[in-house]
Amino acid sequence: MDSEELRRVVDGRWADVRAEVRRQVPPEWSLPVGDLDRDSHRAVVLERARALAAGGLPSRGFETAYGGQDDIGGSLTFFEMLGLVDLNLMVKAGVQWGLFGGALQALGTERHHRRYLAPMMSLELPGCFAMTETGHGSDVQSLRTTATYDAATQEFVVHTPDDEARKDYIGNAARDGRVAVVFAQLVTHGEQHGVHALVVPLRDESGRLCPGVRIEDCGHKGGLNGVDNGRIWFDSVRVPREALLDRYGSVAPDGTYSSPIESGSARFFTMLGALVRGRVSVGGAAAGSAKAALAIAVTYAGTRTQFAPPGSSDEVTVLDYLAHQRKLLPRLATTYALHFAQAELTCDLHDVQTGGTDDDARQRELESRAAGLKAVSTWHATSTIQTCREACGGAGFLSANRLTQLKADSDVFTTFEGDNTVLLQLVAKSMLTSYRDHFGELDTRGTVRFLADQVVETVLERTSARGIVDRLAGVAPGRDDVATPLDRDWQVSLFSWREEHVVAGLARRLRRAGRDGDAVDAFEAVNRAQEHMLRAATAHVHRLVLEAFVAAVADCRDLATAALLGRVCDLYALSEVESDRGWFLEHGRLTPATSKAVTRAVDDLCRELRPHAAALVDGLGIPREWLAAEMTAGTERRA
Amino acid sequence: MDSEELRRVVDGRWADVRAEVRRQVPPEWSLPVGDLDRDSHRAVVLERARALAAGGLPSRGFETAYGGQDDIGGSLTFFEMLGLVDLNLMVKAGVQWGLFGGALQALGTERHHRRYLAPMMSLELPGCFAMTETGHGSDVQSLRTTATYDAATQEFVVHTPDDEARKDYIGNAARDGRVAVVFAQLVTHGEQHGVHALVVPLRDESGRLCPGVRIEDCGHKGGLNGVDNGRIWFDSVRVPREALLDRYGSVAPDGTYSSPIESGSARFFTMLGALVRGRVSVGGAAAGSAKAALAIAVTYAGTRTQFAPPGSSDEVTVLDYLAHQRKLLPRLATTYALHFAQAELTCDLHDVQTGGTDDDARQRELESRAAGLKAVSTWHATSTIQTCREACGGAGFLSANRLTQLKADSDVFTTFEGDNTVLLQLVAKSMLTSYRDHFGELDTRGTVRFLADQVVETVLERTSARGIVDRLAGVAPGRDDVATPLDRDWQVSLFSWREEHVVAGLARRLRRAGRDGDAVDAFEAVNRAQEHMLRAATAHVHRLVLEAFVAAVADCRDLATAALLGRVCDLYALSEVESDRGWFLEHGRLTPATSKAVTRAVDDLCRELRPHAAALVDGLGIPREWLAAEMTAGTERRA
Repeated sequence: MDSEELRRVVDGRWADVRAEVRRQVPPEWSLPVGDLDRDSHRAVVLERARALAAGGLPSRGFETAYGGQDDIGGSLTFFEMLGLVDLNLMVKAGVQWGLFGGALQALGTERHHRRYLAPMMSLELPGCFAMTETGHGSDVQSLRTTATYDAATQEFVVHTPDDEARKDYIGNAARDGRVAVVFAQLVTHGEQHGVHALVVPLRDESGRLCPGVRIEDCGHKGGLNGVDNGRIWFDSVRVPREALLDRYGSVAPDGTYSSPIESGSARFFTMLGALVRGRVSVGGAAAGSAKAALAIAVTYAGTRTQFAPPGSSDEVTVLDYLAHQRKLLPRLATTYALHFAQAELTCDLHDVQTGGTDDDARQRELESRAAGLKAVSTWHATSTIQTCREACGGAGFLSANRLTQLKADSDVFTTFEGDNTVLLQLVAKSMLTSYRDHFGELDTRGTVRFLADQVVETVLERTSARGIVDRLAGVAPGRDDVATPLDRDWQVSLFSWREEHVVAGLARRLRRAGRDGDAVDAFEAVNRAQEHMLRAATAHVHRLVLEAFVAAVADCRDLATAALLGRVCDLYALSEVESDRGWFLEHGRLTPATSKAVTRAVDDLCRELRPHAAALVDGLGIPREWLAAEMTAGTERRA
Repeated sequence: MDSEELRRVVDGRWADVRAEVRRQVPPEWSLPVGDLDRDSHRAVVLERARALAAGGLPSRGFETAYGGQDDIGGSLTFFEMLGLVDLNLMVKAGVQWGLFGGALQALGTERHHRRYLAPMMSLELPGCFAMTETGHGSDVQSLRTTATYDAATQEFVVHTPDDEARKDYIGNAARDGRVAVVFAQLVTHGEQHGVHALVVPLRDESGRLCPGVRIEDCGHKGGLNGVDNGRIWFDSVRVPREALLDRYGSVAPDGTYSSPIESGSARFFTMLGALVRGRVSVGGAAAGSAKAALAIAVTYAGTRTQFAPPGSSDEVTVLDYLAHQRKLLPRLATTYALHFAQAELTCDLHDVQTGGTDDDARQRELESRAAGLKAVSTWHATSTIQTCREACGGAGFLSANRLTQLKADSDVFTTFEGDNTVLLQLVAKSMLTSYRDHFGELDTRGTVRFLADQVVETVLERTSARGIVDRLAGVAPGRDDVATPLDRDWQVSLFSWREEHVVAGLARRLRRAGRDGDAVDAFEAVNRAQEHMLRAATAHVHRLVLEAFVAAVADCRDLATAALLGRVCDLYALSEVESDRGWFLEHGRLTPATSKAVTRAVDDLCRELRPHAAALVDGLGIPREWLAAEMTAGTERRA
């Protein structure tokens, strides 16, 4: 098996950025911090960020006119790669060049770009993204900081009415930030126009706080202590009219508000949508941390031995135990799957955002996909790193072996850039909207069949270019009577059918609740369907992930690599089916016999892939010297 | 609802110990350490352990003759309570008074008790339990440290042959330990007699290492940094013949070996079995950490609001969202269930070990139960604390709010005192042994029916004394045709049927593999059944847990409390059935309609228990001032 080809497929379109990160990042950046105190840790992270700035990669995603390269995909790949190394650095970089820089770029206009982009890219101007408040994290629309226009002085007065409205958890705030993009309720002529963003200075060049600004350190956290999160209060801080990032809403000198988007709600979601890259980065970096953890745990499991079988003196390598394979290999397969989904999302986002077209539906789809993939990838990272720690036993608990720090640092990824549970509900809502747009009042049976046909069409369309259209020609949903778990068509049809069935059921349920509105109130009706919504979103994301994986397999030039990757895809698909077999059985989509056959197939695939485990780890493209030195040293000792 | 009565039931038989711990432990002991450096942290933990020693609770479990109280249940309850406060302290105490003291007590004889028990209890003599080696953690029987008897000097020579045989992860070793109970292969007259334990001095009174002893700090860990874990090498260290803890094997002055237990393997397992209390403590403390996490997360969720429903300005309390209830309330129910199972195990262990009877079968059953409950409780703690962190969003990630430290400190509980996966296999093996002993070569159908009847008998027997025999009279396994999820008999019958079916299938499978030995080798045959074994053990543990919960409900004097606790028991039982419904459906034990009814019942129970969430948290008996100050302060602010 040619591991080079595997890595080529994994590296994908921005292989040059991956190579550049591998070249620029010294191995010691991946070392855990252990006892390092918080202040020193922050200093180290800032220093690394400065080294990155000097290396030029952070400017990839910004306008060429100001020193960038207009390479959005390259920029996202850069953040993703940092997830393999040090999540503190990834978050520090993400705050500066993702959130702060991204907000300037996406919400600002030319005067802001001219003034801020260059020093932002070079890190001469460290900045914050001050959105979240203590009282409102998920519900951004209800933020309570105000920016009130004073026509007399042509200034905005930025104010924190009370402690619940203080900006909270703001990266770069406690130590390094000089300015902040502050999200606040815009008020002019006594009228509220919803949440807008303004550039507000926090500290002068010497680091002294500006008048009216109060900042408090968030204190010690469960991880990411190299990032200086802080709380910010504004006491009637005045900024000039030009501080407003006015791409989607502006205030004339006399205080007249105008916006290219009529509806306040549409404007709000357009502004948030413009910030979609942050979510993509977080999902990618989380997947990166899962890759690093698996590389460590799989490598260790391939060398660690324990217990000799009766009658033998040779102890068994722990990765030869089925239970150990079961812990690691399906997660490795899912990690590959999420990698390809992330790569596809990165490509699509790049093409849409650099294509110059203003395809609104396409943009909405990307936002929904980014939200869903962020949720699934970050939860996957949390549970995978945890399992890797346990699979490495006591060695996994030693900080030197990276796993506990990966766990601690990645933990909050399920929360920030959108709480996962909230994000999945957004995905479900967007599914319902497009469902309604497409099917209106079709009866259920017709709807499901029509939608199913359409999904099959989509799959055919997406894969035909890659030459596997023939394999998919026979796909049609229906009850299975024979056990065919390794049939890719069958796997795809299961994923599609689940998605269609769940969303159709959800639509029916909510429509019914709307009709029978008397029995329970509207909130309660939607609340009772909440788990149903989460299930719809998850099913949707997994269908997209499987499709991306299928496409990646088809993209392999080398037959042996394609065959191996195909087996990995089987393992992802079947372990996902296995974990949700209760639902498939309930809905008559799996017979008990086939369900058991799926479990046996997962066992068989684990055994079949066991000899390729090391190659699959190599394929992830993590330099060996970034992995835990102590445990990979064990490799040489025992191999 | 009388919350006092709930707490009475939860406090149980050793309510006095719980009250005493609540009285002795100052609230600041539960504060997270945050930035505290490792050395200071260790000093703080040692100081707290000294305060506990002065308070007298640690001596509870030891012989009255040496200043103890022969109160094994009280001792286990003491360790369990420390899990609510500070896991560093719990582990430090567990090493000293559980492992080190327990080994002296259980493996030593009168001369050891006379010499060591008093200074061990008072902490004048801090000690280690030096079992695990770098190369062998789970497979203790293969340890490679040697203790070779030298008849000429009447000494044992304790020696570490190489780095793989160094003692590793030994608590109290890096800083405080003065002696260690060292587990080593005993050799006399050139013959190996298996693993035995000896008392070996590590440091003199001034803290200087003894000659031939080398100790290295394990370094920074993912948690528990207040515990001084170290690695120990012995370079031909000589200790007198009397250093051997000789209850189960002794060496005469001339080097003749003798033991009351003929078989080396039986001796080994008897010695390990004598140390069962350690596992019970770890399971109890892990459940304690889950209680603390849930108390924090449920309290916060009852006050935190986010998003107003359309048409309203009142934001919804997050615990009113079904998805949030789904995260926390089934885990709260399972925590109650595990608490009662732990309490029952504690009672039974106390009664057996203080009863003076030498009931071997009873002891084996307790060891198996302790192993299984340790695995299930520690995994429950890991996933529950993780979920609580996420449920508290960013606030959950602030160290001040305890959750991240609870997560970090409890993490290794799934590994130490027996890796969970290994422990569950021990449980399965003991199930197979008793299965074979009972049923020999009965045909399958007869076996299952017979076993089923027996389990029903057992349930009847265990619960009849508590007056609910009538309710259970109709229990009989069989296919369900009607949806009766709230019927306790039905729940019990499902749990029992699952256990019986899985163990019978496993026995059949292994018997078949034994017959068809040619196809795959013996190791591979057992290896392929590994997941089946884990399933059998888990099903067994959950059946025991449900029975313990049923008994506890029956034990409530107050009708309202019994009703509430009964609903909590329903939620535990049904969420367990729901999570395993794939298996029940595959085996025809749930119809799709009933399976869906179970899911609806879990939803309904969440809604029904929501108003009682605060009372259920109070029932856990954690002083409010031990909880995260910042988040429970929020309670008063918003209530």
